Amino acid sequence: MTTTTTPLLPTRVDADRLLSNLERLRAIGATPEGGVTRRAFSREDVKGQEFVAGLMREAGLDVRVDAAANLVGTRQGRGGTGAPLVLGSHLDTVPGGGAYDGAYGVLAAVEVAHTLHESGTVLDRPLCVMAFSNEEGTTGTPAMFGSRAVAGCLEPGELDLVVTGQDRALAQVLDAAGGDSRCVDDVRRAPGSVAAYLELHIEQGPVLIGSGTDIGIVEGISGRLTAEVTVQGQANHAGTTPMADRHDALLAAARLTVAVPSLTGPGGVVRVATVGDCQVSPGAWNVVPGRARVIVDLRDMSEDNLRAGLDRLRAMGQEAGSATGTTVDVTEVQRVSPTPCDPGRRATVRRVADALGLSSVTLPSGAGHDAQWMARVAPTGMIFVPSEDGASHVPYEHTAPADLVRGAGVLLGCTLLEGMTT
Amino acid sequence: MTTTTTPLLPTRVDADRLLSNLERLRAIGATPEGGVTRRAFSREDVKGQEFVAGLMREAGLDVRVDAAANLVGTRQGRGGTGAPLVLGSHLDTVPGGGAYDGAYGVLAAVEVAHTLHESGTVLDRPLCVMAFSNEEGTTGTPAMFGSRAVAGCLEPGELDLVVTGQDRALAQVLDAAGGDSRCVDDVRRAPGSVAAYLELHIEQGPVLIGSGTDIGIVEGISGRLTAEVTVQGQANHAGTTPMADRHDALLAAARLTVAVPSLTGPGGVVRVATVGDCQVSPGAWNVVPGRARVIVDLRDMSEDNLRAGLDRLRAMGQEAGSATGTTVDVTEVQRVSPTPCDPGRRATVRRVADALGLSSVTLPSGAGHDAQWMARVAPTGMIFVPSEDGASHVPYEHTAPADLVRGAGVLLGCTLLEGMTT
Repeated sequence: MTTTTTPLLPTRVDADRLLSNLERLRAIGATPEGGVTRRAFSREDVKGQEFVAGLMREAGLDVRVDAAANLVGTRQGRGGTGAPLVLGSHLDTVPGGGAYDGAYGVLAAVEVAHTLHESGTVLDRPLCVMAFSNEEGTTGTPAMFGSRAVAGCLEPGELDLVVTGQDRALAQVLDAAGGDSRCVDDVRRAPGSVAAYLELHIEQGPVLIGSGTDIGIVEGISGRLTAEVTVQGQANHAGTTPMADRHDALLAAARLTVAVPSLTGPGGVVRVATVGDCQVSPGAWNVVPGRARVIVDLRDMSEDNLRAGLDRLRAMGQEAGSATGTTVDVTEVQRVSPTPCDPGRRATVRRVADALGLSSVTLPSGAGHDAQWMARVAPTGMIFVPSEDGASHVPYEHTAPADLVRGAGVLLGCTLLEGMTT
Repeated sequence: MTTTTTPLLPTRVDADRLLSNLERLRAIGATPEGGVTRRAFSREDVKGQEFVAGLMREAGLDVRVDAAANLVGTRQGRGGTGAPLVLGSHLDTVPGGGAYDGAYGVLAAVEVAHTLHESGTVLDRPLCVMAFSNEEGTTGTPAMFGSRAVAGCLEPGELDLVVTGQDRALAQVLDAAGGDSRCVDDVRRAPGSVAAYLELHIEQGPVLIGSGTDIGIVEGISGRLTAEVTVQGQANHAGTTPMADRHDALLAAARLTVAVPSLTGPGGVVRVATVGDCQVSPGAWNVVPGRARVIVDLRDMSEDNLRAGLDRLRAMGQEAGSATGTTVDVTEVQRVSPTPCDPGRRATVRRVADALGLSSVTLPSGAGHDAQWMARVAPTGMIFVPSEDGASHVPYEHTAPADLVRGAGVLLGCTLLEGMTT
């Protein structure tokens, strides 16, 4: 890089404006419990988008809603029409979610643009702030619609799916929300046409808050393997069937559930492993369970590790089946490949954090983000700030104001570094 | 006893008539799967009762339906109006149940009466054959209605409960089925007013079939303790929450479930222990479970052992909670005291089995039976015959014809022994 970073980095975002805008946005769809409900494409979601469009205009951005109902604010760079630097996240929430998941990344990006606007700073590249549509996927249709559209990864027939609670196809819902279902393919960006993508987000986990670290440099977005484990035993009378004659499906499922954490940690193969549900049939107090079903979720940054985890899970299933006289079947139902963040963008985040005197740590993202799709078209970096209690998707999701401001400062610094052509 | 048993014991029941009657009764409420559905007080149940009333009349019994809708067939003894010997069981079934659970005991008792009638044998005591109403309790009202009424153990307000699927109170349903809700208390028998109660039943378990034994001499009806275990953990993101920071409610429930079988067998305290159901909240593949609930069923012939089992279960809950950072609460929700069978009646069954050259074994009944209520008013004995596969409450419930005939022969022998005054 030829840029002299020293005079640029001290530039601060307007902390009061950022925090005030976050409070104003949280009021749209606010729930009595202190949370926020802005389901994708709902009236609240559209209202939130309109509010942020207004903030974008105040920040000097040219605003439009693209065919995928993404809100896009653009600022020309010195170089004219070159590959833009994109900052983004999303505005929709899960029902009863928090005020920061997604919204923080968008409003911090708007604040960065506003800061550049006020200071008259012009980057070499165009700057694009994007609020991607339907990240959460609470519509009964696939999640991360807007960023998948940009990555050219929409699924066949997806627009024909009926949206939960609206009784209309996604195509109609999209059009009503400002999109254009007929030319949704037009929003696709070719790989290389975006200089870099940066996303600032709350961690949604306890690593930063637990270690007292200011900034998380995201290594990548964990891959995920979801397996369904079904156990076939034999339902029988709980009073009359001696223990030795049982084929207890729940007992097998419980043995497997207890073994699952051993897939992690020392001697394990994946980062985290979870049994999130267990269903029992017939599920009566006086009947030895004849069938059971558990869902196992494995996450890791390595696809090989996920595969190894599945192999071990199958072995555990065999063992649980043998021990209980049941048949255990382990089936992979979904696999999402890990998405590493770009090493260059990670270095940028670290460089800025160091320059600002902020502590940082490299960590994977266990949750999915729009960044995992943008990584298909651009070198991508993600910045995390601490989540209190590691909580997210709950009304009490919270990040301290000082952390929100710090994160926006890092995003500003990264924007300055990435916004200059080399 | 002063009876000479030798000339009486060889008397055989009419095997063809017994088996034919069982087939005719199974046709009433037959399901396409080969099972039987005669829910208590349903049209099929009343039809079954009418069919059996006809058989009773053919067997020379005086027939009536008492106020609790029990079908009662009586035969006078030589002594006139002394305390009767009662043989009984029930005619109602669970939905999609089998042809023998209950029905076998009633039809074998009718066959015994018919055999006595044909041979002109007159007992010293009156003989009473009873088909108790609503043993199964699939009506949404408490089970074993008829035998509880005889024992004087109806629950306050029970007659006002609405019967599932009929939208009427039990009182009205009872009256429509031939009972008389206004004087249901009149069917109560004082302790000592019944000379003995004998019930023949399929085992509904695999002990006899597994050991190749002809006859089970029931030690008693197991007591039962049902406990609800609730686990309070913390729901969290399955991808972002490190293993060390979790409070996984399902993991605690699974640990407890795996430990429950250790309550039985060597070093254990109860005969059988079952976790029949497990419910998880929120129960999503991508969320660490925040709450879980399992139901534990303990059975034993000793109430002290049941209490000790509950204590151990509480200790297991503590351990599972500590290991997972959750709070585990173990609550007793129901306890049914064990009902030992009368030693004299057990001796009678053994004596008859021996005399008939049948192998026998003493075993507890894990399931509940009308006998447990009749034991409150009479010295009670129960006779088991083998259940194929130990299966019951299923359409494929089956007992070999030879075993059905052997059991009826034992009931006949016991009736002869018990029917004579000492």
